[in-house]
Amino acid sequence: MADVPSMEALEALLRRLPGIGPRSAQRICYDLLVRKRNLLPQLATALERAHAAVRFCERCNNLSEAPLCAVCKGLHRDHSLLCIVESPADLRAIEDTGMFSGDYFVLMGHLSPLDGVGPEALHLDRLSERLAEADLQEVIFATNPTLEGEATAQFLADLVPAGITISRIAHGVPVGGELEYVDRGTLGRALHGRRLLDE
Amino acid sequence: MADVPSMEALEALLRRLPGIGPRSAQRICYDLLVRKRNLLPQLATALERAHAAVRFCERCNNLSEAPLCAVCKGLHRDHSLLCIVESPADLRAIEDTGMFSGDYFVLMGHLSPLDGVGPEALHLDRLSERLAEADLQEVIFATNPTLEGEATAQFLADLVPAGITISRIAHGVPVGGELEYVDRGTLGRALHGRRLLDE
Ligand SMILES: [Zn+2]
Ligand SMILES: [Zn+2]
Repeated sequence: MADVPSMEALEALLRRLPGIGPRSAQRICYDLLVRKRNLLPQLATALERAHAAVRFCERCNNLSEAPLCAVCKGLHRDHSLLCIVESPADLRAIEDTGMFSGDYFVLMGHLSPLDGVGPEALHLDRLSERLAEADLQEVIFATNPTLEGEATAQFLADLVPAGITISRIAHGVPVGGELEYVDRGTLGRALHGRRLLDE
Repeated sequence: MADVPSMEALEALLRRLPGIGPRSAQRICYDLLVRKRNLLPQLATALERAHAAVRFCERCNNLSEAPLCAVCKGLHRDHSLLCIVESPADLRAIEDTGMFSGDYFVLMGHLSPLDGVGPEALHLDRLSERLAEADLQEVIFATNPTLEGEATAQFLADLVPAGITISRIAHGVPVGGELEYVDRGTLGRALHGRRLLDE
């Protein structure tokens, strides 16, 4: 289809999205260009709006359109609990369980020395401020149950001031898996069954 | 995530694309907004460009950025053969076999009385012009091997002038399937094994 460069360009970009291979990128292009042409400008506008409006919460790094996200603005959160996750998607997965009403801090990644991701990438200055807040009684590490996620939890546990309980969500979540894709029931049980972190 | 309306709007639009369910729409949004933010404006521009540039070939209805598509502008096509398909994606699937060098006509659909799609939707005036061209010797129906595709081929066969051979691609393609997703080898054999249409 050397005659349709704008369609090829669109296909190439779609292939960079998660879960979209060459065949589905092609299928989406034909569907948009033949059957759903009015979706093309609608999608373009939605992408631009999201790009302009969505930022990271100044307190927890969650996605938000305001300086503070919906969770941080929530009136009924339990500020004695701080749950530390790797990504906004993980935060959403835990919120969707409906079994946690504490605060969050999103690391935006995990330690990965091989990829050159050291502690400086994990917003440690802001995390330290959160760990120093007066109400805090327990820090729950909900990093991914991977080698990197475990190592990150171990590393950050050293930053938690003495006297504050440190826990890790239970290994109900499958080892080696991605927290974001764990079913809600398993994730809820894993939260309830959290254990003290043996350092 | 009631706090991120622009992300919700994007998710809702993504769910209208083929093969993208609620979970993958959510996954794509997080991937774009957290890890690939520069893809957001790139994708928006690509969608707008494709919307503005891609039209339908004036001769065969294939997707094109010029009045005539790459196939219709081709210098080495065999104008004695006319292959009739339902969609531009089906045309591309046949071109990708590398086993057909004739001309095409894209119906942009099939007869579907229950959905109110009658013959007037299938560009019959332009198809009639194509069927009256002097070089034409054989019309190959490559509509989908579905009830509607077969009925459409049967209906259109009556429009083919006397003396012109009428054929149907062989039933190597699975009955009830969608032509667009048939593997290339099967589709190539189906073209080679085309049989005379018994009316
Ligand atoms: Zn927040
Ligand atoms: Zn054409």
